[in-house]
Amino acid sequence: MNILIIGGGGVVGQKLAHALAAKGTLRGKPISSLTLADINDPAPVEATFPVATTRCDIADTASVAQTITEDTDVIYLLAAIVSAHAEEDFEAGMNINLFGTYNVLERCRKLGTNPVLVFSSSIAIYGGEAQDPLGDHSYPNPQTSYGGQKAIGEILLNDYSRKGFVDGRGFRLPTISVRPGKPNRAASSFMSSILREPLNGQEAICPVEPDFLHYYLSPRKCVENLIKGAELNADDLGENRVMQMPGRTWSIGQLIDAMTKVAGPEPAKLIRWDPQPEIKRIVSGWKWDIHADKAERLGLTADESFEDNVRYYLEDDKPVS
Amino acid sequence: MNILIIGGGGVVGQKLAHALAAKGTLRGKPISSLTLADINDPAPVEATFPVATTRCDIADTASVAQTITEDTDVIYLLAAIVSAHAEEDFEAGMNINLFGTYNVLERCRKLGTNPVLVFSSSIAIYGGEAQDPLGDHSYPNPQTSYGGQKAIGEILLNDYSRKGFVDGRGFRLPTISVRPGKPNRAASSFMSSILREPLNGQEAICPVEPDFLHYYLSPRKCVENLIKGAELNADDLGENRVMQMPGRTWSIGQLIDAMTKVAGPEPAKLIRWDPQPEIKRIVSGWKWDIHADKAERLGLTADESFEDNVRYYLEDDKPVS
Repeated sequence: MNILIIGGGGVVGQKLAHALAAKGTLRGKPISSLTLADINDPAPVEATFPVATTRCDIADTASVAQTITEDTDVIYLLAAIVSAHAEEDFEAGMNINLFGTYNVLERCRKLGTNPVLVFSSSIAIYGGEAQDPLGDHSYPNPQTSYGGQKAIGEILLNDYSRKGFVDGRGFRLPTISVRPGKPNRAASSFMSSILREPLNGQEAICPVEPDFLHYYLSPRKCVENLIKGAELNADDLGENRVMQMPGRTWSIGQLIDAMTKVAGPEPAKLIRWDPQPEIKRIVSGWKWDIHADKAERLGLTADESFEDNVRYYLEDDKPVS
Repeated sequence: MNILIIGGGGVVGQKLAHALAAKGTLRGKPISSLTLADINDPAPVEATFPVATTRCDIADTASVAQTITEDTDVIYLLAAIVSAHAEEDFEAGMNINLFGTYNVLERCRKLGTNPVLVFSSSIAIYGGEAQDPLGDHSYPNPQTSYGGQKAIGEILLNDYSRKGFVDGRGFRLPTISVRPGKPNRAASSFMSSILREPLNGQEAICPVEPDFLHYYLSPRKCVENLIKGAELNADDLGENRVMQMPGRTWSIGQLIDAMTKVAGPEPAKLIRWDPQPEIKRIVSGWKWDIHADKAERLGLTADESFEDNVRYYLEDDKPVS
């Protein structure tokens, strides 16, 4: 089983690599090799099988052809230009999120090897006039270019799977929190920062009100689900290879209460409330009444409570001071 | 008002050109010019304003740049590789239906003139696990590449409109019947042939059963709706620029009964029943419980009964013998 993670240098890609290293098998077979590909060199990961790291620009067909070979059995496509970044730089978003996805699919079609392709879509595909409650079969009416590009990726994944060019499975990721590392250019970045920075003893800014509702999943659960997602039988997926990944809806206030329950009253005092209109404009177009019926039927799961999300951050990610 | 019809040589494009010639205005202003563009030279159309015909390959960016200029006020994008053709020739479908649409949108973005862009989508975007009843906000889960490419066009149209690059409006066309001319490579082609050929005194083959249900609109009503569609105010379109164009659901048996009511008992005797598995496979993935709430609210309409569709064919299209 030769596995490739495109976006293997990112937060989820790295955690997935470590989880695969610990597991040693995928789809019932031993892992023979793992390749981590990203626009910059991914950090290496230790495993009992060989792990290679490589640069890959999915906007460049030659680079994609070099990275995906006839030996590649499973591809995780996690690379993306995130929401606020794609909103600012329309061409970058189109080149990576739309044409990058197309280039990966086309490479698989031309190889003719029908690899398993796990595609990360996003709850950013919901929005606009799409009606609550939202889920597997909601109309994509995103109000960001990132969401539009992900919605297009879903349709391509389905068509390439229907034609037998890839064995695709797409998952609309909830907002991942508590996300380790530094803030990124996702408009949702603050939904981790307001917990991560205070848990690390630093100040953080919250740009929305405490009653702002959103749909979350911990990185640990996300990686578990991505592994289960690759292991699903194609026959169980039906005519739609894309589904909502399970998450849970919480208010900002509930996030902070969970942090206080797990880590005491001090972190919450480090949050500064500073409403930011541009962030609010983007995230208020996002939906939160989201349901993951199909994925739950297939055995994917959400966190039990947001206290779990906080605990996982402390166990897995909090920098040792 | 300078109007461009891409796909201006096709059945709907030609009828739209004649209707615009008769009307003389669009969006409250006199029409200054009309350009009919197509992969082959479109037939010329008489009007009181200048009508140009030109070749345009929307898969070729240079050709698109030549055809869409800063003077272009309204673009109708009707060109497509139809369903069975795109199913056979995957690359042709992607190049015209996906990249052709992208090229038109990109040309508009680069011009910065925000033209009105009327995009013809299709009920072929419905299918798979999308749940009945279907309409404006149904999840696109098409079971043909043509449907997938149209669904992607919808998402691009919405995003380019949201960004202010075009003033887009997309309409999911019902199956157009009775379509004049010759059979084409759409899987739905028989839904006109079984009426048109008998009305012209010729034999026709029906590849499905009489109880097969489908969603129809006459060419005359389709053109009326495309003109209304260009004239809608952007403010009335909301956050989703795409909507179902009104049609009506009939069984094949009802189509034939309507033909008999209008034209007497002889034509129906010319239909030969010959089930064809490949056509049945494609069209049985199509949905028929379709509703056009938004378009009806905005004043677009369907035919009153299928007898109208038959009468319009006899009035507008039946070849003089």
